[in-house]
Amino acid sequence: MSGVDETHDPKRTSLVESANGHSDFPIQNLPLGIFSPPGHHARPGVAIGDMILELSGVGALLPETVGHLLTGNTLNALMALPSADRVALRRRLSELLSDPTHREIVEPLLHKAADCVMHLPAAIGDYTDFYVGIHHATNVGALFRPDNPLLPNYKYVPIGYHGRASSVRPSGVPVVRPNGQRKAPDEDTPTFGPSRRLDYELELGIWMGQGNELGHPIPIGEAREHIAGYCLLNDWSARDVQAWEYQPLGPFLAKNFHTTISPWIVTAEALAPFRIAQPPRAEGDPAPLPYLFDEADQRSGAFALELEVRLSSAAMRDQGLPPFVLSRGSATTMYWTMAQIVAHHASNGCNLQPGDLIGTGTLSGPDESGFGSLLEISQGGKKPLTLPAGETRTFLLDGDEVTLSATARADGHVPIGFGACSAVILPAV
Amino acid sequence: MSGVDETHDPKRTSLVESANGHSDFPIQNLPLGIFSPPGHHARPGVAIGDMILELSGVGALLPETVGHLLTGNTLNALMALPSADRVALRRRLSELLSDPTHREIVEPLLHKAADCVMHLPAAIGDYTDFYVGIHHATNVGALFRPDNPLLPNYKYVPIGYHGRASSVRPSGVPVVRPNGQRKAPDEDTPTFGPSRRLDYELELGIWMGQGNELGHPIPIGEAREHIAGYCLLNDWSARDVQAWEYQPLGPFLAKNFHTTISPWIVTAEALAPFRIAQPPRAEGDPAPLPYLFDEADQRSGAFALELEVRLSSAAMRDQGLPPFVLSRGSATTMYWTMAQIVAHHASNGCNLQPGDLIGTGTLSGPDESGFGSLLEISQGGKKPLTLPAGETRTFLLDGDEVTLSATARADGHVPIGFGACSAVILPAV
Repeated sequence: MSGVDETHDPKRTSLVESANGHSDFPIQNLPLGIFSPPGHHARPGVAIGDMILELSGVGALLPETVGHLLTGNTLNALMALPSADRVALRRRLSELLSDPTHREIVEPLLHKAADCVMHLPAAIGDYTDFYVGIHHATNVGALFRPDNPLLPNYKYVPIGYHGRASSVRPSGVPVVRPNGQRKAPDEDTPTFGPSRRLDYELELGIWMGQGNELGHPIPIGEAREHIAGYCLLNDWSARDVQAWEYQPLGPFLAKNFHTTISPWIVTAEALAPFRIAQPPRAEGDPAPLPYLFDEADQRSGAFALELEVRLSSAAMRDQGLPPFVLSRGSATTMYWTMAQIVAHHASNGCNLQPGDLIGTGTLSGPDESGFGSLLEISQGGKKPLTLPAGETRTFLLDGDEVTLSATARADGHVPIGFGACSAVILPAV
Repeated sequence: MSGVDETHDPKRTSLVESANGHSDFPIQNLPLGIFSPPGHHARPGVAIGDMILELSGVGALLPETVGHLLTGNTLNALMALPSADRVALRRRLSELLSDPTHREIVEPLLHKAADCVMHLPAAIGDYTDFYVGIHHATNVGALFRPDNPLLPNYKYVPIGYHGRASSVRPSGVPVVRPNGQRKAPDEDTPTFGPSRRLDYELELGIWMGQGNELGHPIPIGEAREHIAGYCLLNDWSARDVQAWEYQPLGPFLAKNFHTTISPWIVTAEALAPFRIAQPPRAEGDPAPLPYLFDEADQRSGAFALELEVRLSSAAMRDQGLPPFVLSRGSATTMYWTMAQIVAHHASNGCNLQPGDLIGTGTLSGPDESGFGSLLEISQGGKKPLTLPAGETRTFLLDGDEVTLSATARADGHVPIGFGACSAVILPAV
């Protein structure tokens, strides 16, 4: 992992003024993404304040190993590089965007972010979703098994399953309410129609960097080096479809109709100053098996990240009401670290590839204020929530817009954000 | 769907002599694949007898819509075409490979298959695995729930889950025994090490043709048109890892370490004469919900396919013993048709893409002679099998080679085969 260097200097400011106040994208962040300027094709860029710097234009000024990789419409090749190369890119971008002597080169390559369209930053080979939010696993388990919410494997196995890569979309693309088979407990047979229990899930996403060959596991001590960066991830879930279909092979159509991510890759390097110790396991919990245990990872495998979910209904937007905060939480609710997730995934020889996307699973806090899904907030649909316009919700209605956000904070450092992960629900077809 | 035309004429023979006797690849088959001639890069080809015809060389002689798509190292673009274009390609290839007047053009483009390396025929966007073999689902369910083996959703929902696309490999690539967490019922805690219950699963694979846009389901009456072809698929499974990890989100590391497929796409058009009626459901079974029911599909949605699994141990090969037949079965054990699988997968708006791979799930027959996995043959490891060299097996040992094969047969038609789907087990790392 890269250490903390001058790119994290809190005194460093950008020649892009909007990056120097409250912004998710100060000079200390420099997330990478793929964007289209108005009327133009997709290309790599870096977010800075409310602008995007077009990277192909500065390719010749960038380190040789990365400069030629910044011309296509995905970042997979960049993600495949060793982290040292991404560090070199970061240093150079920090310099270009902070030192006013570069103004003449940089300014013509800046685009107003509000005018641009964001795309997925990579061609996603495989998408995997984990279940490492222990409070979420406990809350959901309790709905089914009040006395024994966590299954016996949970504290040994970072539970995960494969999701659908083709239906991952960047923030802003509307979500069409899925049709599916639903069977209420009091119904004899299922019916097919629009989901009546559409939900969101607050997650973080891992962008894989360098991959491993099939049959060659990634040791826990090296796993961190294989992560290129992070994003927010909303694992939209049709709870009624899920309840009926998920036995015995797990969630399928209940989740594969759409996954929304924040489009900027917040790099592993940008998040380095926000690393904290993995919270100790509860008394009596087993130690991780040796293939999942690394002293250094325990010391700095978690992130000081604040997470927030907001909901805005069509009525609220009509009435000019601001979005309603559904929950506030933190990323320290992960029972397993990012490195443990990666090492476990590859422990059987499964080959991970640059640009693979891995979700953490829903990150709920220990109490109601931090619940990361409506399933938890509404206690399985039993306790409606009242919104500012007087409406109630157990699950999402058409027109509802859900926005996830995240901010990394640490003493002595400029906070950095992830940008929005947002989408509105459209009626079923 | 294409009908039965002159390309299926049993009297038609090929100018490639080896295609005219007993061969998986007579002139009536013409499966498509990606191969490398010795020392050369990957390219599209068609199997004919024991030879492979290089397609790029005849591109100019092929229909305009397909000729220019046959130069890369995947067949995704070809698979994306409407079936009418694939039919035109088939007709032209059948003519080129049967009419001796084309001998001078064709012969220089033929390669001995035994000298070539086969690759995956497509870049697989997503790989999904279903569970439509009702006898397998019943047998496996009975190991856990003797009185109630099939879950209540089974006869309503074509059960499926997402698998790993990155670890699909063509026939011939060895399988490294995976390490993983295993916990025997009499052990208090899990240990990490090589799987002790490594198994195969006999499945068919569907190659997706034309895709659908996210949010736009594929109606059941159109689903067949979206299938480009079929292959054999071995869903290698570590049963001990699976038993410990699979609750609540389904199989993960127990299956994603390797999936073997037969490398030739046996096209939907080649299999047209072998379509038969979907066997009627048992008395008392529910009718499929309307989104999964199509009269024409019920009349011709199944295939007259004979399936076989053979095992060869290292000792058997050393002693020159032939492979041992583990099971013989048929593809009529599918509770849901290929079209129902596709329509269900897209019913929530999930976007399927050309080159996606979909497994049927294990196709076991109703009795022991057709069991499609060692889990079933050995009754969960309780009943060892004796091999010709005197060895016994409950699950696979290192050095074992498993080969799946399939032959389509119908009166008045030349049988066509799928080619081998074979791999040997290597020791864990």
